[in-house]
Amino acid sequence: MGLKLTRPHKIEYYECDLQKNVTLPMLISILIKVGGAQTNELTDPKILEDKNLGWIITQYEMKINALPKQEAIVYITTEADSYNKYFCYRKFWMYDDQGNLLVELLSVFSLMDLNKRKIEPITDEIIAPYQAEKTTKLKRFPKMASVENDEFQKHYQVRYFDLDGNGHVNNAHYFDWMLDTLPYEFLQNMEPKEMEIKFEKEVQYGDEVCSIAQYDEDLKQTRHKICHKDTNELFAQALITWKEINKDED
Amino acid sequence: MGLKLTRPHKIEYYECDLQKNVTLPMLISILIKVGGAQTNELTDPKILEDKNLGWIITQYEMKINALPKQEAIVYITTEADSYNKYFCYRKFWMYDDQGNLLVELLSVFSLMDLNKRKIEPITDEIIAPYQAEKTTKLKRFPKMASVENDEFQKHYQVRYFDLDGNGHVNNAHYFDWMLDTLPYEFLQNMEPKEMEIKFEKEVQYGDEVCSIAQYDEDLKQTRHKICHKDTNELFAQALITWKEINKDED
Repeated sequence: MGLKLTRPHKIEYYECDLQKNVTLPMLISILIKVGGAQTNELTDPKILEDKNLGWIITQYEMKINALPKQEAIVYITTEADSYNKYFCYRKFWMYDDQGNLLVELLSVFSLMDLNKRKIEPITDEIIAPYQAEKTTKLKRFPKMASVENDEFQKHYQVRYFDLDGNGHVNNAHYFDWMLDTLPYEFLQNMEPKEMEIKFEKEVQYGDEVCSIAQYDEDLKQTRHKICHKDTNELFAQALITWKEINKDED
Repeated sequence: MGLKLTRPHKIEYYECDLQKNVTLPMLISILIKVGGAQTNELTDPKILEDKNLGWIITQYEMKINALPKQEAIVYITTEADSYNKYFCYRKFWMYDDQGNLLVELLSVFSLMDLNKRKIEPITDEIIAPYQAEKTTKLKRFPKMASVENDEFQKHYQVRYFDLDGNGHVNNAHYFDWMLDTLPYEFLQNMEPKEMEIKFEKEVQYGDEVCSIAQYDEDLKQTRHKICHKDTNELFAQALITWKEINKDED
């Protein structure tokens, strides 16, 4: 059990989709920023900078009870729960202003040498301020079913503004590519309920990616992969479970 | 002189580029939301909804003294300055926490019949709550020099998440298309100082747009146009004046 931090956020019109629900890419960004705020509060950024290290995210597991709407005030709580040699497990919760749990996110962070682009061990010195529990256990995630056909497919070019202050493609953009590949009518009628994503390799500026998806109507699940358009190299894969939008709610 | 409203905003990491400066698309969104906040405070949304009307933006004129950086707290003031039969001139100012003026934006709003997609006259009843000055004068904007060659060119497909709650392509995305067309090295070394943009026609979901730009090194200006990839129909044109990024500032 690590230290917790809670921050409010107002959902703005430019963070929302056609249904006035927050978009999945913005939802991820809004949650993750509270992790950044905790790091800013608890640690001296020079410790990582001097070693040329940066936190990267390798995996998400998310459960969405309800997507917050435009103009809603939400509260995000985060906690660096536990860590082992190579992974730190950070949790996020988003609540509405009545205290109802809207979204739960488990994220897996690793430390990367930003020059060598190589994963480095997490030292006790770096993690101590968060008071996360040290464990030798690796959390096992269910194996993700691979995409077997290219029912839906689109190409995307990495844009300049997809790059953040670390020079990475901000991982929220992967959700934009994954979801935009699904048909318009699907996105208008369905909303995500659960989501797992695994980032395999960093996309670089100038890369053109191929976003491939297939839909299992019985399970109401879409399987996704993002790969290099030319080399077919795998960048990320995901599994999203959907529910129909209840149009009466509005 | 209309009523003014001021709101704070914190610049988040996902609103910033590689240089940790706010991006032009996010800067526009952050300013415009304060106009929306004023409308929410002063007016009953049902008045427009019942008439099937919505505000659209047809033009911007912007002056940037300095781009706010990641983590900065800024203050945005807005005022519906004046209006005539078809146009409302709304001003925005962004200040840093010392009261220094960072950004000035003049925007031109019109009322659109959302079913017919046609501009409608602005009635006194609709504009009264803002206390904007009524004028018969049309503000004249300098004629924009057209793009004469396609020195830089890229294609973009409108994405599902480019659409906002009004079913429009949010106009901030035009800046993403315009700027992303410029070379990486250019965007790394230059930042916008002044910007004019005119929106000619709405881009629709499913459209593929062509973003064309040319650079005049003497004037340090880029000319831009966004047009339909197949029909060549003009969606927007812009003129941006640039300055070199002062790398010593960091």
